[in-house]
Amino acid sequence: MAERYDTVTFLSDFGLRDEFVGVVKSVIRELARHVTVVDLTHDITPYDVRGASLTLARCVQYLPSGVVLAVVDPGVGTERRAVAVEVAGGEGVLIGPDNGILAPAVAMAGGAGRTVTLTNRAYQLEPPGATFAGRDVFGPAAAHLCNGVDLAELGDAVDPGTLLPGIVPLARPDGAGLAAEVLWVDRFGNAQLNLGADDIEGWGDRVRLRLGETHRSAAVVGAYGTLGPGQIGLVIDSYGLLAVCLDRRSAADELGLGPGDPVIVEPLLDDEQDRPAPTTVAFPHRR
Amino acid sequence: MAERYDTVTFLSDFGLRDEFVGVVKSVIRELARHVTVVDLTHDITPYDVRGASLTLARCVQYLPSGVVLAVVDPGVGTERRAVAVEVAGGEGVLIGPDNGILAPAVAMAGGAGRTVTLTNRAYQLEPPGATFAGRDVFGPAAAHLCNGVDLAELGDAVDPGTLLPGIVPLARPDGAGLAAEVLWVDRFGNAQLNLGADDIEGWGDRVRLRLGETHRSAAVVGAYGTLGPGQIGLVIDSYGLLAVCLDRRSAADELGLGPGDPVIVEPLLDDEQDRPAPTTVAFPHRR
Amino acid sequence: MAERYDTVTFLSDFGLRDEFVGVVKSVIRELARHVTVVDLTHDITPYDVRGASLTLARCVQYLPSGVVLAVVDPGVGTERRAVAVEVAGGEGVLIGPDNGILAPAVAMAGGAGRTVTLTNRAYQLEPPGATFAGRDVFGPAAAHLCNGVDLAELGDAVDPGTLLPGIVPLARPDGAGLAAEVLWVDRFGNAQLNLGADDIEGWGDRVRLRLGETHRSAAVVGAYGTLGPGQIGLVIDSYGLLAVCLDRRSAADELGLGPGDPVIVEPLLDDEQDRPAPTTVAFPHRR
Repeated sequence: MAERYDTVTFLSDFGLRDEFVGVVKSVIRELARHVTVVDLTHDITPYDVRGASLTLARCVQYLPSGVVLAVVDPGVGTERRAVAVEVAGGEGVLIGPDNGILAPAVAMAGGAGRTVTLTNRAYQLEPPGATFAGRDVFGPAAAHLCNGVDLAELGDAVDPGTLLPGIVPLARPDGAGLAAEVLWVDRFGNAQLNLGADDIEGWGDRVRLRLGETHRSAAVVGAYGTLGPGQIGLVIDSYGLLAVCLDRRSAADELGLGPGDPVIVEPLLDDEQDRPAPTTVAFPHRR
Repeated sequence: MAERYDTVTFLSDFGLRDEFVGVVKSVIRELARHVTVVDLTHDITPYDVRGASLTLARCVQYLPSGVVLAVVDPGVGTERRAVAVEVAGGEGVLIGPDNGILAPAVAMAGGAGRTVTLTNRAYQLEPPGATFAGRDVFGPAAAHLCNGVDLAELGDAVDPGTLLPGIVPLARPDGAGLAAEVLWVDRFGNAQLNLGADDIEGWGDRVRLRLGETHRSAAVVGAYGTLGPGQIGLVIDSYGLLAVCLDRRSAADELGLGPGDPVIVEPLLDDEQDRPAPTTVAFPHRR
Repeated sequence: MAERYDTVTFLSDFGLRDEFVGVVKSVIRELARHVTVVDLTHDITPYDVRGASLTLARCVQYLPSGVVLAVVDPGVGTERRAVAVEVAGGEGVLIGPDNGILAPAVAMAGGAGRTVTLTNRAYQLEPPGATFAGRDVFGPAAAHLCNGVDLAELGDAVDPGTLLPGIVPLARPDGAGLAAEVLWVDRFGNAQLNLGADDIEGWGDRVRLRLGETHRSAAVVGAYGTLGPGQIGLVIDSYGLLAVCLDRRSAADELGLGPGDPVIVEPLLDDEQDRPAPTTVAFPHRR
């Protein structure tokens, strides 16, 4: 049997404190010695299928060809389906529970090709308990695919149209502005919105952010370091989306923003554009 | 010299904040380029030899053949021995300090074969200080074994019977029930007990948990998702042991349970079995 | 084109919660399948260029030959330069922003050889935004070097003398003692000073530590485990530097020490050497 894939990219909510990730990687290694596992992240908030699905969707264009293993699986051991979905003509296969975690990434990768439920126990471990499908079902499936086992061998073909869809929130018009939502707060406290740079094209280099009862002006910038100390920015982030930010500080902490929070972005009037930004400290920028 | 092993599975209490793990892996890579290191976990609580030994014992059946490197070593630099222990006829070698960390895993793997203390400085790094045996002694030993150096070259043979034993607590009868102990609280707040599913065979699908002065009833289940909201469960976990759990919440936080805490598990009387579980909320299960 | 390097050692302040590290590794893997990435650490405090530069300097002697990728980059997207620096006659190349992060490690490795700024966009990704140079500039540069692309292809040659220097604080005499500074507090709470064992040669086996208004005596030891319970030590750590420590407890927490804090180390008078250490508990050492 010819080796088919050499890489498994792995995302989960297992954390790194327990041995869960290491055991899944051990199982893959024992079955498929030639495979390299790339950890995408394992610190998805426990049970946060939405956060995991957005992470995968952001990253999928950068992932190496091969198998993607995505395990955030609060329904483990219940009747939820375990699935494997081919994308890009078989250049990649996404594996995980059918709970919406894969759907946005599959869409970003051009849509689902052949799809199966992982029902063939010949390609699974015999578990002492049903609570660790990463080890017993998903990880072995990834390894066997890498070894050249055909997707169809892993279980029953299913109509990709029956896969649970993911939920990607869309921004909507709100007066002269746009009602957006925080998709993701990263380690540095940048709060990514569901708005692209083109959504505010022509609005100039400053906008207003309405956050609940308060509002703040923000400079539209291409880099954190062009902001003054304490000046709120709306940076075009590395995925081409707009993120609320500060230079070397956490905008999410400063403004109390978390995933799912609403943010209304509004254009400023022409005369507002000319005033100095009220959130900018007056003394000269010292860097 | 023929390469002997291609995998080092690595567990420690080094954490991932400092460079300790990366330096050990760098040393292994410089010595043995063909080796893949699989991280089991590095977030063992500092100095927690017991926790590390239980982690290894749980996992050992899933680890790839090769070398296991286990470094939780509060006695580093003192007279405690550094050892390497063959198991399964040389299919695996466990390396670590002789402080009990290896013992339960060695037993799970069928018992110790050839055993040496790591005294041969020709297979160690010359250290500027004696506090990092992972880098200077254990890591190099793992790499040299992978390169095909025979175990006997690494130091003096010792009687495996002299190795410090590990401590695996046993449950004991307590009235009609069993006095158990929390072995492990995982990231999701599941509190694994030193009881297997067979220990409560015939007790029905509900049991009583006595925790200090309080008691709670718990449903015996095979999956978290079959529990009602807020209902306490005793799940047959992925290692076949019983774990106190909740669905999508931390049972350990809810009940104040940590490693080493006592839990008495008791059968319910027949008429108790028929009553609705008092910890189950009355409205229908919404998932 | 002949493969040149097979290892990228990677340090950053990206953390492991988001997908940043995984995406950089994915990009490297897609470009250079034969490369193994060794993670040094990704938990550098956000923006802490000094901490990262000290980490690299400590480790560089242990790193495998190949490429070192160091990304702590608060100025990403601004006019700060991105550079690659050959060391040891091309045995290694260090890649990162020109903000001082590389300088101490370059010096430890014998000084800079050929140096370029990463200006050739043919070896970079086309980014949707300018805030993730690890993915778009530094990671691809590392991968292309591994594939055999010559350093000179990556951009314009620059005089290594123009690189921003790193800052390594030096201890200075203070009366009969030495005014030192905490370089690093590790996970176990050991506070490494900018003093080597030879700096206190001949001072005997006990010294005085002056910390602000208070002072404590400390035993000079080679291993944590030789300290009595609660006894403060000055251990010769694994890098040959002196670190304030306790046995199985955090000295940094106990004494309120953090990176950059001043510590004056003084010799004790002969008669002070003979008194029992006041921080040692009187009952016998129980381990």
